[in-house]
Amino acid sequence: MKLKDETKEIDYLIRNMNKLLSQYTKEQLINKGLTLPRFKTLWMIAKLEPVNMSQLHEEMYIANSTLTVIVDRLVEDELVRRYRSPKDRRVVLLEVKAKGKECLEKILDIRQLFLEEGIKLLTKEEQGNLIKTLNKVYNCIYEKMEERKG
Amino acid sequence: MKLKDETKEIDYLIRNMNKLLSQYTKEQLINKGLTLPRFKTLWMIAKLEPVNMSQLHEEMYIANSTLTVIVDRLVEDELVRRYRSPKDRRVVLLEVKAKGKECLEKILDIRQLFLEEGIKLLTKEEQGNLIKTLNKVYNCIYEKMEERKG
Repeated sequence: MKLKDETKEIDYLIRNMNKLLSQYTKEQLINKGLTLPRFKTLWMIAKLEPVNMSQLHEEMYIANSTLTVIVDRLVEDELVRRYRSPKDRRVVLLEVKAKGKECLEKILDIRQLFLEEGIKLLTKEEQGNLIKTLNKVYNCIYEKMEERKG
Repeated sequence: MKLKDETKEIDYLIRNMNKLLSQYTKEQLINKGLTLPRFKTLWMIAKLEPVNMSQLHEEMYIANSTLTVIVDRLVEDELVRRYRSPKDRRVVLLEVKAKGKECLEKILDIRQLFLEEGIKLLTKEEQGNLIKTLNKVYNCIYEKMEERKG
């Protein structure tokens, strides 16, 4: 089966736009004295919380010893809370604290302010159409992913 | 400064569409007996080649010992070639072999075939407009990134 040229081009644009935005965010993190692994770990804890170290390790592909150092720093900086599960006291869980949530939001704002430079070039109508068509495509692949799970 | 709602929505769509496509690709990799770290490493070598282990380590945030195991497997499977730099025999470099390039292309095809399910729902006109508007935004942030470097 041959892929449509339109698909290749749209995939290229989505993939590389995302890459540029991540690259920009990464630079801003460094300016703020944060590192990418610490930020990614914070992001992943927010996504999975409450989460234990082995689940986090499975998702992150960072060596356990490195991950422990990163999480220790996040806890020390009061971005993440480490506590024992009320259901099973042997299990240690992680969750993002208010300060960590604020930090994640700030980073998202930085990313979106950069993207907005491009969005501003579009007319209101183009912006509306872009959202409409992206939503159509997104909802379709979202539903296909959900079907696969079921 | 307040962000436009349109920016937030477009960022959300781009970010999550990319995430869904990566998630799908990851599942397909597992079905093919590949692992995500091996695939990511192969991808990064293709991006940076010729590249030495310490450059690769800096980009990947994987522990050196883990990265060595991953690269050994890629070399063993003839996806990657390891050779001494002709300029400096002390430097060991990596590059992707033909079989590795084929593997990367196949994975990209799988990703794009999935995306095409959604693209097919759009009319020819919607597809054209989507490419046009995404290009406008992409070119703008691409140029802004280039300016930052210069």
